[in-house]
Amino acid sequence: MKLIAKGKTKDLYELEDGNYLLKFKDDLTGEDGVFDPGANKVGLTIEGAGRSGLKLTKYFFEILKNKGIPTHYIDSNIEEATMTVKPAKVFGNGLEVICRYRAVGSFIRRYGMYAKEGQPLDAYVEITLKDDERNDPLITEDALHMLGILTRDEYRILKELTIKISNVIKEELAKKAIELYDIKLEFGRIDNNQIALIDEISGGNMRAYKDGKYIEPLELEKLILED
Amino acid sequence: MKLIAKGKTKDLYELEDGNYLLKFKDDLTGEDGVFDPGANKVGLTIEGAGRSGLKLTKYFFEILKNKGIPTHYIDSNIEEATMTVKPAKVFGNGLEVICRYRAVGSFIRRYGMYAKEGQPLDAYVEITLKDDERNDPLITEDALHMLGILTRDEYRILKELTIKISNVIKEELAKKAIELYDIKLEFGRIDNNQIALIDEISGGNMRAYKDGKYIEPLELEKLILED
Repeated sequence: MKLIAKGKTKDLYELEDGNYLLKFKDDLTGEDGVFDPGANKVGLTIEGAGRSGLKLTKYFFEILKNKGIPTHYIDSNIEEATMTVKPAKVFGNGLEVICRYRAVGSFIRRYGMYAKEGQPLDAYVEITLKDDERNDPLITEDALHMLGILTRDEYRILKELTIKISNVIKEELAKKAIELYDIKLEFGRIDNNQIALIDEISGGNMRAYKDGKYIEPLELEKLILED
Repeated sequence: MKLIAKGKTKDLYELEDGNYLLKFKDDLTGEDGVFDPGANKVGLTIEGAGRSGLKLTKYFFEILKNKGIPTHYIDSNIEEATMTVKPAKVFGNGLEVICRYRAVGSFIRRYGMYAKEGQPLDAYVEITLKDDERNDPLITEDALHMLGILTRDEYRILKELTIKISNVIKEELAKKAIELYDIKLEFGRIDNNQIALIDEISGGNMRAYKDGKYIEPLELEKLILED
């Protein structure tokens, strides 16, 4: 097993059979001890956060699998906080595809002149580049196309898959009276060049609210997975 | 004549006949005495800059008129540095529509991971909100539509008009062996709701280069308008 990359919240290893292993860490993105799914650095460490994020990821990836939505997920070991995944090739150096149901975070920082904090948005999808140095800049369909990062078809597929997946997560949360405000997904090409969801789906890449109050990642896992 | 608004580089007056008067000032956007067409504040003042910008604006607006492209231009008084224009209603609180032929400025600041400084771009159009407080954020077609700022049709028309107008300017500059790197346009609705080019076209809202060297706004006017 060979270490390929150390990420902010996960490390990536290559397995001998050609698959990969993601090791979930107890680090969360944020600033000065406050969690922020949109942040570009580790802001806090909570014991058990890695296993908790993996539990939710496993739960959601299995639901998506049953719905026939392609993902890189193979299996997971909660005790070890590891997930086995298929090899995937990202677009460019990696994109983040965001789906927004309410106006919060960077949406309000950009468009506060036209939107109120918390205002409903209709599954609005936008793409940012994974580029810490440049603060994950927003990018348009035209620029993605021009810079050779996505074809027009790939853009359309990513947008459709994002809405489909986000709606599944939104409905799952709604069963526990939790409201999904926004979610950040990553995609890559697996197997025969198929576009699939990669990375994770946990409290670490979404904003979920209950009774108008933001739910921290570990609390979200407990609320979703409790009987 | 009634003062309606004081802008960074122009003041706006309402005339008794319902038209408007733009008074070009000697202020240029930039920072610490260095001109930057993408800047959001006045960075320097040069005597004659207002008249110079107006001369170029008059020159380009008359060329566009002859090509049947709608603008708000009526006439101008170079001596007084004033331009009479039709009343126009902007989209939202105002948009800037940028057409890029080479990767410089904010394009490189955002997409430097995928583009080299000065790399050719194929008349790439992007829209930013006029919002000094939020540093004129980039906005996608989907967000413009969702926030009620532009319809899908208006977006398409703005993009087409922008490429058409920018290509005219690019060709005019090329006659003097000057290369247009990028240009920032503003649009509004005039007369019978027709979408028209408004504001100005001068060195103040474009980046032009000669022999690989950037040309300052006043120098650009001299190079274009000299015989």
